Amino acid sequence: MSDSTAVRLAERLNNVETSAIRELFKLLGKPGIISFAGGFPDVALVDVDGIRQATLAALEQEPAGAMQYGATEGYLPLRQQLATFMAGKGVQALTPEQLVVTTGSQQALDLLGKTLVSPGDKVIVEGPTFLATIQCFRLYGAQLVSAPIDGDGVQVDRLEQLIVEHKPKFVYLIPTFGNPSGATLSLERRRRVLELAVQHQTLIVEDDPYGDLYFDAAPPPSLLALSEQVPGSRDCLVYCGSLSKTLSAGLRLGWMIAPDPLMSKAVMCKQFSDANSSTFAQATAAQYLKAGRMDANLARARAVYAERARTMCDALRQELGDAVEFVAPQGGLFVWARLTGARGQVQDSQLFAQRAIEQGVAFVPGAPFYCEQADRASFRLSFATSDVDKIREGVQRLARAL
Amino acid sequence: MSDSTAVRLAERLNNVETSAIRELFKLLGKPGIISFAGGFPDVALVDVDGIRQATLAALEQEPAGAMQYGATEGYLPLRQQLATFMAGKGVQALTPEQLVVTTGSQQALDLLGKTLVSPGDKVIVEGPTFLATIQCFRLYGAQLVSAPIDGDGVQVDRLEQLIVEHKPKFVYLIPTFGNPSGATLSLERRRRVLELAVQHQTLIVEDDPYGDLYFDAAPPPSLLALSEQVPGSRDCLVYCGSLSKTLSAGLRLGWMIAPDPLMSKAVMCKQFSDANSSTFAQATAAQYLKAGRMDANLARARAVYAERARTMCDALRQELGDAVEFVAPQGGLFVWARLTGARGQVQDSQLFAQRAIEQGVAFVPGAPFYCEQADRASFRLSFATSDVDKIREGVQRLARAL
Repeated sequence: MSDSTAVRLAERLNNVETSAIRELFKLLGKPGIISFAGGFPDVALVDVDGIRQATLAALEQEPAGAMQYGATEGYLPLRQQLATFMAGKGVQALTPEQLVVTTGSQQALDLLGKTLVSPGDKVIVEGPTFLATIQCFRLYGAQLVSAPIDGDGVQVDRLEQLIVEHKPKFVYLIPTFGNPSGATLSLERRRRVLELAVQHQTLIVEDDPYGDLYFDAAPPPSLLALSEQVPGSRDCLVYCGSLSKTLSAGLRLGWMIAPDPLMSKAVMCKQFSDANSSTFAQATAAQYLKAGRMDANLARARAVYAERARTMCDALRQELGDAVEFVAPQGGLFVWARLTGARGQVQDSQLFAQRAIEQGVAFVPGAPFYCEQADRASFRLSFATSDVDKIREGVQRLARAL
Repeated sequence: MSDSTAVRLAERLNNVETSAIRELFKLLGKPGIISFAGGFPDVALVDVDGIRQATLAALEQEPAGAMQYGATEGYLPLRQQLATFMAGKGVQALTPEQLVVTTGSQQALDLLGKTLVSPGDKVIVEGPTFLATIQCFRLYGAQLVSAPIDGDGVQVDRLEQLIVEHKPKFVYLIPTFGNPSGATLSLERRRRVLELAVQHQTLIVEDDPYGDLYFDAAPPPSLLALSEQVPGSRDCLVYCGSLSKTLSAGLRLGWMIAPDPLMSKAVMCKQFSDANSSTFAQATAAQYLKAGRMDANLARARAVYAERARTMCDALRQELGDAVEFVAPQGGLFVWARLTGARGQVQDSQLFAQRAIEQGVAFVPGAPFYCEQADRASFRLSFATSDVDKIREGVQRLARAL
């Protein structure tokens, strides 16, 4: 240990604490543990052969583009492919220039914090929401306000009250197969959110990393796609996309679509955050999308995750019965559940998590996903990286831990 | 144009302005222009074949590592290779765990701003210094103070006065082949900087993207390597490295070495900035370094840049004579020059740049590289991306523009 006093930290660090989840993750090294704790997609589903071919094509056809610094806005061929990809999901009238490539969608969140949040500004998020969003915005001094959700996503009447009361810089939502909630905002509520945005001139951030991972029917259109039906709403809307769950998390690529005045500032900020996202990764992703392999790739992932989700939900009902309640997700990677406390069983998910680890199964307790008013009975289970046998065995272990 | 009022920007954006250089760069599209304006390495020097082989090896041997999210600190095999690389440059006793991989060294600067700078904090930089450093730190509210340099780097007596006067959060230096100055801090001054750091308990940030690009003899050891000779100085030292000028800018990889208490906070901040740098790029870089091709790659780059630098310096002396003054760089990518105003010639480099564009040659005027007290006679010439014939022709055009 040093007695140096040269390092004096910035005050903004007082706004965040080291992740409570991290401590739990340290226990995951225990041999034989079945983990429902991660937030990652299954790397075994990555089309490694397709990515290999895409990389070789990029290095062959465009070595100068793939090996040099690039535009902060992103590598144009990738922006073109992503605009086409978005058009396929109902977002018309999107030019490549309206889209900036980010170093994962996490960077989009960081750029939103940097460009929009002054210390003390209010930001509304779902309760629960993505953990790294909470910390990211708090580092810029945001005061977070929690809007309650149910199985149909954020409760819009309550959201409107909070908008009126807090006049937030923006509202952050994961409308489709939310993390951790698994919930999907209904079509009717989506329209209402867009109307609220226009009526109160409130910026809405739609984070959509999971929307392509649906199990049966496609989810309702994104807020961005729907914005064409609600005049003025496009100017109040930011969309964040990601290739991490659909192509490969290793490329570390996402994208953001935002109103012009915000976009230009976000690009300027990105210039000083990391100059540009890896052009090597961007050229690879562009070639992959151009090769037309995404559809088959997604079809495969959807089928695998659908089976795992179904297996987990069935097993939870069978093994844990009325001790837990949950809404079966229609896509994404997560089941969000609550301990009901039925028959006097444990109702604190932190305690349940500790007992579960002893039984050889891990998951994440729900409290850290709330910026306020945590529901301590809630917890998140990921079915993404375990095969169906592991899922059944893991849920049996959960039952033993109760 | 929209009349939306939903976007309300953060106050920190008032601290920066769009780059003055950007406007100039728009003119570079003019056909036939010879550009000394860029800050990029020559992409033609990238060992594309070596990178191709490294990528194939990564996808073959470690697909799960290259295609999945990774540790925020960086991909361990790359951290191991980088620790070995640093050992080869005289930095002993460095474990892979003491080094965090960043998304280019620009991200290291961003993390330093985020972890260290509260609004109003003082930071000392060289005058002139890297443009994106100025803007990056200002976005976090830093008040920058300029320490003068000469051909031997920062003037240490003046630096000490400024440290005493301003008690900065840290001092940011590019000690070796600086951008834009081309200057190299002498060995004697390096020792003095480390002593000042200990004496005043002031954090020193050593940004070292160019140190490997020396022309003849290697430069003095880095501050980090020298810190072993100055007790206590290692605890006052941050080192930022980059693969962008030595391997490929397309990978977008750098690294940072910092005292423990700062390192842990920087990693936490990186978690919310971009979670991790592309593991695909990291696994590729690790395989490349492991394959042992870096030495030959660097030897080739050094020889090419040395010839271009020599050509430019000779041509400047021959064509512009006493109208300019400069110290010939011993490495790096840049010649930093001043208009002397001899024989009544132009002494404003902004005006000179405009005339040069008309003559078909571009460079960057010096003023934007200063955070205060700009020397408007100075300007930066990059010899990195033009062959020797283009360099001679470009300098002749400069002479015509005078």
